[in-house]
Amino acid sequence: MKILGIDPGIGRCGWAVVETRSSKLEARNYGCIETSAEQETGERLKDIYETLSRLAKQYKPDIMAIEDLFFSKNVKTAMVVGQARGVILLVAAQFHLPLFTYTPLQVKVAVTGYGRAEKSQMGKMVKMILKLKVIPTPDDTVDALATAITHAFTKKSYGEKRV
Amino acid sequence: MKILGIDPGIGRCGWAVVETRSSKLEARNYGCIETSAEQETGERLKDIYETLSRLAKQYKPDIMAIEDLFFSKNVKTAMVVGQARGVILLVAAQFHLPLFTYTPLQVKVAVTGYGRAEKSQMGKMVKMILKLKVIPTPDDTVDALATAITHAFTKKSYGEKRV
Repeated sequence: MKILGIDPGIGRCGWAVVETRSSKLEARNYGCIETSAEQETGERLKDIYETLSRLAKQYKPDIMAIEDLFFSKNVKTAMVVGQARGVILLVAAQFHLPLFTYTPLQVKVAVTGYGRAEKSQMGKMVKMILKLKVIPTPDDTVDALATAITHAFTKKSYGEKRV
Repeated sequence: MKILGIDPGIGRCGWAVVETRSSKLEARNYGCIETSAEQETGERLKDIYETLSRLAKQYKPDIMAIEDLFFSKNVKTAMVVGQARGVILLVAAQFHLPLFTYTPLQVKVAVTGYGRAEKSQMGKMVKMILKLKVIPTPDDTVDALATAITHAFTKKSYGEKRV
């Protein structure tokens, strides 16, 4: 099974393609879509949409797993995050990818066993689980890999929240 | 100039194509994209994306004008509205449509001259301004037409907020 993991955001949107083979997990590719606050919002969303569409075409993932946050500091932030989330869900629908969401807490617990794990611990565990040579950067890439790992670890219980 | 007016929403997303010819305004077409809460969110966003893309191809508008709301009852609503707004901004970017936003207050004032106008007054004024035979339904369609009208009326001052 190939999992496209996403850490949604408009300035930085982490992505990761992780493949499960029997009990092994392999990172096929990963990165972070960075957009500039100087771009118009539509252009930033287009960058995210086009990159994710290209990844979906190239890697043909079986599912999309996204790290999700249903609270936010304020309504304006929620609106902005919602916009990025909208184009991500659009890509999932266009490529017929079943979509699963995991809270940051679920991701931390699945990857480190500890719900208050720090960013550095997450990076170390992701590196170890996927046998990477270095800890990926930025944190958004780590989070996308961690979200894909979370789905791989919990996929037997397909009861996670679908959106 | 052809204006694609949008009243964003996920359950109902009103749209209108209004053309300005010298001092005349003509509604070329209008309607409302309705999606069901029983559909997955991605499918709903895909319906909105595909319809708006088809309209952009068919009518080749020069600009997109959207009615916007930067406050919301709560963070969850903002997130949901943000998702729909995300795919709308994506369509604008993909078709190179300059995007202008107007608050509900600006739209009411532009169309009725009164910031606390009721839905029924908006419908009557939109019908009159565009010389329609009947008041369009639902209200989301009226709001999309009204937003396009607002842009046409205020287009000389291109100082509206771009996003």
